[in-house]
Amino acid sequence: MIKTVPVVENILGANDQLAETNRRLLDATGTFAVNFMASPGAGKTAVILRTASDLKDRYRIAGINGDIASTIDADQIASIGIPAVQINTGGACHLDGVMLSGALPKLDLGRIDLLIVENVGNLICPASFRIGSHLDVLIASVPEGDDKPYKYPNMYRGVQAVLLNKIDLLPYLDFDMGYFRKGVEALNPGLAFFPISAKTGEGFDAYIRWLTEQADSYLK
Amino acid sequence: MIKTVPVVENILGANDQLAETNRRLLDATGTFAVNFMASPGAGKTAVILRTASDLKDRYRIAGINGDIASTIDADQIASIGIPAVQINTGGACHLDGVMLSGALPKLDLGRIDLLIVENVGNLICPASFRIGSHLDVLIASVPEGDDKPYKYPNMYRGVQAVLLNKIDLLPYLDFDMGYFRKGVEALNPGLAFFPISAKTGEGFDAYIRWLTEQADSYLK
Repeated sequence: MIKTVPVVENILGANDQLAETNRRLLDATGTFAVNFMASPGAGKTAVILRTASDLKDRYRIAGINGDIASTIDADQIASIGIPAVQINTGGACHLDGVMLSGALPKLDLGRIDLLIVENVGNLICPASFRIGSHLDVLIASVPEGDDKPYKYPNMYRGVQAVLLNKIDLLPYLDFDMGYFRKGVEALNPGLAFFPISAKTGEGFDAYIRWLTEQADSYLK
Repeated sequence: MIKTVPVVENILGANDQLAETNRRLLDATGTFAVNFMASPGAGKTAVILRTASDLKDRYRIAGINGDIASTIDADQIASIGIPAVQINTGGACHLDGVMLSGALPKLDLGRIDLLIVENVGNLICPASFRIGSHLDVLIASVPEGDDKPYKYPNMYRGVQAVLLNKIDLLPYLDFDMGYFRKGVEALNPGLAFFPISAKTGEGFDAYIRWLTEQADSYLK
């Protein structure tokens, strides 16, 4: 097993180079790319659908959806009139620079302001693979429990914002918001944090305002 | 990236050999090992705590808890009087044969009938790494959504039972039980299936009866 370490390091090095190439391509076309990561079932697709609906009059949007199987997510994005490309990773537990570089040419990037990337449902592996996005956002969810920052620190360290989804379920669950926030703050001090519900829309105003500021400051 | 495939195959081959060695060690001491896998926050620890409480007068039980960081889970298991060993994977997204072979000698296996292994919270990677367990069980949960069998097929294919946890939340979520069951059945026909709530105890009678049958048939 020890012999695999140098190989993994080489893969990560090669991946970083490809992520850099992806970033240059996005910058050349003026496309702001946001990479949403989350555990399976945290509500990535629901959050992305509402985000795209809220912003589709402001930006020209496209989606890239990573999954190990199925096209369920891309189909849903496409159903609201957003161009979407599905990446089936064939079992791999994350998106990486190579996969994104394969998907980008399938979109007319010159006509896209905001690219929403949905990573594979996984709280561990996507944290290790940059893809070239300008913003990395973690979607946590109330039913996962308040201890997740303590158990999956790398994911919480590597993002620029945490959305805590499914707050409509707070009355039915034992979720200690103070304990959760304390864990996030210890790992990533001052991190942007938005409690939201993709189901009811609660909290979306503040989150969308923040996302718009990030995108506008890039696109101006 | 293509060059990594043979390396991965060799790792899996070596892993299978170690899993086999672990199995022989468990068989030599007459210890029945159950490997619980799940997404982060599906309730692995809560299910295991209730399982251990229900069975601790019937079997001599021990726990092995895998996490990428922290000892939260092993501490909880130990708090109900069950010997527990924590494996911190140092970032790795699954338990494997090597990690289990390192943990087994820390337990007095000759005095343990039932070994409960809690894998790392991940719906993808643990499916590819056998550890030597006699039974592999997936804990799904209602808030994750009814589409998970379609999105994470390898995990649903590789287990002998699915527990659907957090059914106490069914009234507050759009979860189509028929769609979920249809997905499970397509991937793994006739699979043992138990809707449960580790919070309320609902459904535990049937699940514990099944688990006891499996353990007794091995231990007799």
